Amino acid sequence: MANEVVLLDFWPSPFGMRLRIALAEKGVKYEYKDEDLRNKSPLLLQMNPVHKKIPVLIHNAKPICESLIAVQYIDEVWNHKSPLLPSDPYQRAQARFWADYVDKKIYESGTKVWTKKGAEQEAAKKEFIDCFKLLEEQLGDKPYFGGDNLGFVDVALIPFYSWFKAYETFGNLNIEAECPKFISWAKRCLQKESVSKSLPDQHKVYEFVCEIRKKFGLE
Amino acid sequence: MANEVVLLDFWPSPFGMRLRIALAEKGVKYEYKDEDLRNKSPLLLQMNPVHKKIPVLIHNAKPICESLIAVQYIDEVWNHKSPLLPSDPYQRAQARFWADYVDKKIYESGTKVWTKKGAEQEAAKKEFIDCFKLLEEQLGDKPYFGGDNLGFVDVALIPFYSWFKAYETFGNLNIEAECPKFISWAKRCLQKESVSKSLPDQHKVYEFVCEIRKKFGLE
Repeated sequence: MANEVVLLDFWPSPFGMRLRIALAEKGVKYEYKDEDLRNKSPLLLQMNPVHKKIPVLIHNAKPICESLIAVQYIDEVWNHKSPLLPSDPYQRAQARFWADYVDKKIYESGTKVWTKKGAEQEAAKKEFIDCFKLLEEQLGDKPYFGGDNLGFVDVALIPFYSWFKAYETFGNLNIEAECPKFISWAKRCLQKESVSKSLPDQHKVYEFVCEIRKKFGLE
Repeated sequence: MANEVVLLDFWPSPFGMRLRIALAEKGVKYEYKDEDLRNKSPLLLQMNPVHKKIPVLIHNAKPICESLIAVQYIDEVWNHKSPLLPSDPYQRAQARFWADYVDKKIYESGTKVWTKKGAEQEAAKKEFIDCFKLLEEQLGDKPYFGGDNLGFVDVALIPFYSWFKAYETFGNLNIEAECPKFISWAKRCLQKESVSKSLPDQHKVYEFVCEIRKKFGLE
């Protein structure tokens, strides 16, 4: 069977970046299609009729939606190298728990950091930093959340680093001062080509956020 | 190693019911501890310090939190019988997608059905019924979402059936009239002892919902 892999994505999406990293870790070649989210392609609407969202991984014409589910799929199908989930069931459950935590907490509080003002923004900033402090504790002295190698939680979390200039500028935050271990971890991840090639430059994401803020009158 | 299994739960919780069903399907004996959510036990706070929520599965003193993660853990550890997730990676991804859909849509729209009024309630009722219609389509002509046997999506979804009298009464809904195939599926699931023993009676849940509504002035 031909191994035809297509990724429907949008370049600043941290969720899309997860799939780019996972595919790069596995050495899977794929066709990248950047979507215009204001004018979604018929292919996207056909492949993800339920949520109509990117990213969608299309493997031999069959769609896999929701980023953490797609990363697990990639890990299961291309299981010859770079395992992302540990083999021990308890360690797997822990990795899933922290990836789910990133999904539930980081994106939401991070978005509030650059879209809200006043007390609501202050509360979001506190929650955002508290999340990273808790994640730092989980990392402990390991080089990666996955241990000696990049794992599921690393893949779930590192994409948000490309948004840090935006979070820091619009939230008036200094994440490195608050969470130095977290920043060291992020820089370590970026030394991997699978990560550095999958994440856009922080300045490019910052300019994208500036545009959105202008468009929605957030300035 | 001793196989000591404890479940921290709260009897009307559809999330807790998932673990009860999964453990019953696997034939795992466990100690059930019903929590008072207004006065959470030190054990719950110690075992789930991040979310402080039930259900928590405690296996040989180690906690597994978040219901779908715990069900996967149960499926992986007690893998000698009643597989809940399919072995094919694509089918696994599909099962995870629909279980995640239940998590994201059914609980939230269902809660609005019995807590909101007016236009907000009407919108929630429409969303709620639309979700079940979409799930009916997914079920197709199969006896269970898992095929010939109860699977991950069945375990994720069937607990909400115990809330149907509450949804129908306070939402003025007739789910059977709208989604007859769904109700047939639910009754089929209830013929399994693993399900019937794990779900409280609809009337008992209805009375619990009446109490909550009284307490929060929703009458």
